[in-house]
Amino acid sequence: MVLNLTNMSGEVTYKCPKCGFTTEANTWLIKCPRCGSPLNVNYDLRRPRELSRSELTRILPVKEPLSLGEGLTPLVRRGDYYFKLEYLNPTGSFKDRGWSLALSVLRNDVTVVEDSSGNAGLSLAAYSAVKGVRARIYVPKTAPEAKKRLMRLLGANVVEAATRADASSLAMSFTEGVYVGHSWNPFFIHGVKLIAYELALELGNIDNVVAPLGNGTLTLGLYLGFKEAEELKLIKDTPRIIAVEASGYEWAYSMLHNTPMGVKATLPDGIIVPQPPRLTQIIDAIRDTGGDVVVVNDQGVIEGLREGIRLGFIIEPTSAVVFKALKEVNLSGTTVVILTGSGLKLSNELYRLIYGE
Amino acid sequence: MVLNLTNMSGEVTYKCPKCGFTTEANTWLIKCPRCGSPLNVNYDLRRPRELSRSELTRILPVKEPLSLGEGLTPLVRRGDYYFKLEYLNPTGSFKDRGWSLALSVLRNDVTVVEDSSGNAGLSLAAYSAVKGVRARIYVPKTAPEAKKRLMRLLGANVVEAATRADASSLAMSFTEGVYVGHSWNPFFIHGVKLIAYELALELGNIDNVVAPLGNGTLTLGLYLGFKEAEELKLIKDTPRIIAVEASGYEWAYSMLHNTPMGVKATLPDGIIVPQPPRLTQIIDAIRDTGGDVVVVNDQGVIEGLREGIRLGFIIEPTSAVVFKALKEVNLSGTTVVILTGSGLKLSNELYRLIYGE
Ligand SMILES: [Zn+2]
Ligand SMILES: [Zn+2]
Repeated sequence: MVLNLTNMSGEVTYKCPKCGFTTEANTWLIKCPRCGSPLNVNYDLRRPRELSRSELTRILPVKEPLSLGEGLTPLVRRGDYYFKLEYLNPTGSFKDRGWSLALSVLRNDVTVVEDSSGNAGLSLAAYSAVKGVRARIYVPKTAPEAKKRLMRLLGANVVEAATRADASSLAMSFTEGVYVGHSWNPFFIHGVKLIAYELALELGNIDNVVAPLGNGTLTLGLYLGFKEAEELKLIKDTPRIIAVEASGYEWAYSMLHNTPMGVKATLPDGIIVPQPPRLTQIIDAIRDTGGDVVVVNDQGVIEGLREGIRLGFIIEPTSAVVFKALKEVNLSGTTVVILTGSGLKLSNELYRLIYGE
Repeated sequence: MVLNLTNMSGEVTYKCPKCGFTTEANTWLIKCPRCGSPLNVNYDLRRPRELSRSELTRILPVKEPLSLGEGLTPLVRRGDYYFKLEYLNPTGSFKDRGWSLALSVLRNDVTVVEDSSGNAGLSLAAYSAVKGVRARIYVPKTAPEAKKRLMRLLGANVVEAATRADASSLAMSFTEGVYVGHSWNPFFIHGVKLIAYELALELGNIDNVVAPLGNGTLTLGLYLGFKEAEELKLIKDTPRIIAVEASGYEWAYSMLHNTPMGVKATLPDGIIVPQPPRLTQIIDAIRDTGGDVVVVNDQGVIEGLREGIRLGFIIEPTSAVVFKALKEVNLSGTTVVILTGSGLKLSNELYRLIYGE
């Protein structure tokens, strides 16, 4: 089924980073029709004149973005680090930035299909409700109950699969809707990149940025945004990206350092993922910035949660992984830590993890 | 015990709105030493030059405010109304604005004592954790479990009382700490008033503002902020305040309209309160703006939750009461609706209420 895109401003093209295939982006493509790789989208850069919602919207390739109030999240300083509170986005995670753009270019008369461990699905459910499209979201059985309930509350059709990998293959093979999967979706990353623009406009040059790494939409969004900010002379240099992966799912780490996978973590559900479709891009991005990857196990998650709550941050286990990197990596200069997801959804689980019943 | 205030900028005075008692605010006073009424604080107004964190901070009477990233919340338009998303504050409610200021002026070597139905206590727990003061919070047994758990997670000493009224009297009679109760605290309201400044700076003139009314810190914060904005010529006129009370706890409504109390609501826990200490001030404020009060029962809360979720707002029952006012009151011109508290904490309860199991 050919689905025309809508609501776009300016010329946008798809480009395959693997085989070089290029075409005008006027229909929906989730992967390269020639080689099956995830696609990128490109369009003319515009320089934001200030840190404001209208200026940040102007640099995106849409006429009227679908907004629930995402973005312009607080930046707070604690000791040597700045923390970017992405968990204060409308549905409690940075995923809202991605869907705000990615759903804006889709028509209203479709069913959107996604696979998610929780936050991306919850966010998609909210943006779909506001846009008035049906959402069908495949989640692993093990996804937190609270997230599944919230998706259903927002009117999404939530389908449980045995594993995260099953959720993914079921979603991609469902034929009565449009697969918009965030780990493949090229528009999604352009929504996420605004985090980097906000940081560049607020802080200027940044030396390190620390963030969890699962499917890589955050890593790639940060990389893309900082690269553009560098090109637009908002900053002198793209910061080192320090990405944090879950033990047993350290796809980037094991490729970068040629090591075997560790013991499987169970707590940071948002980064417990099958091999990311954009893994090569992710590794290239981290390498290009002179960054690195840190691996966290369940114990590290619990320590991170304790550290976060001491600082007054009510974050979820996946977000708490960043504190491991702050301990392990030598970070000099200006460091920004991205806190990705809210812990308000999970008070019960947090209490159990932090206090051990 | 005389407790000196700290970290203040400029001259601040206490003034009793009832008996006229006035004194310089250099020690902590929770009530008028002459007549026992709640106090106000006054200081020179400063006009914010733009909508930014630094300008909004500059108008408060503190050198360095304690910040967890509160304020500058999103404003989104849906149909005829603007919604101010106060539930995206750091701990999930507008209460964060109050504590940011109210804790800033206190020393570090005290135990702060509060009574709360949930959100004010959760917020105080977070700000206390960051400031490094001990917090002792009295809550009614019926307060949502998630909120109590989160308070404990943040290190607060949570004490359960039989009723909301008991929580209040126990907190006020605890002698080994400083009672900072938000419904009495005169600094708290000045933190909350920044909502009005943000709205005035973003929208200019506003005709109506709709908000839940419990202890009145929000109503009084809005009133104070808009009055100041009017004096500073940021707006021409203070908007009508449409406050929404819970049935059975319609303290303002029953005084304004001389009616008996209705059937006791059970769902909007944040506005199920004993008679507010500042009731006279609240009524005067609503009257002065030409506003009114609307009363909501449990059925109205459930309908409001459904309406909110349709619009993509994940809010708690207390916040959902505003939708009743949108139906009942004739609102022309520019209307802003304040959404006060996050529903992320309460996915289980929300699901039950909206779907009936
Ligand atoms: Zn290709
Ligand atoms: Zn007095």
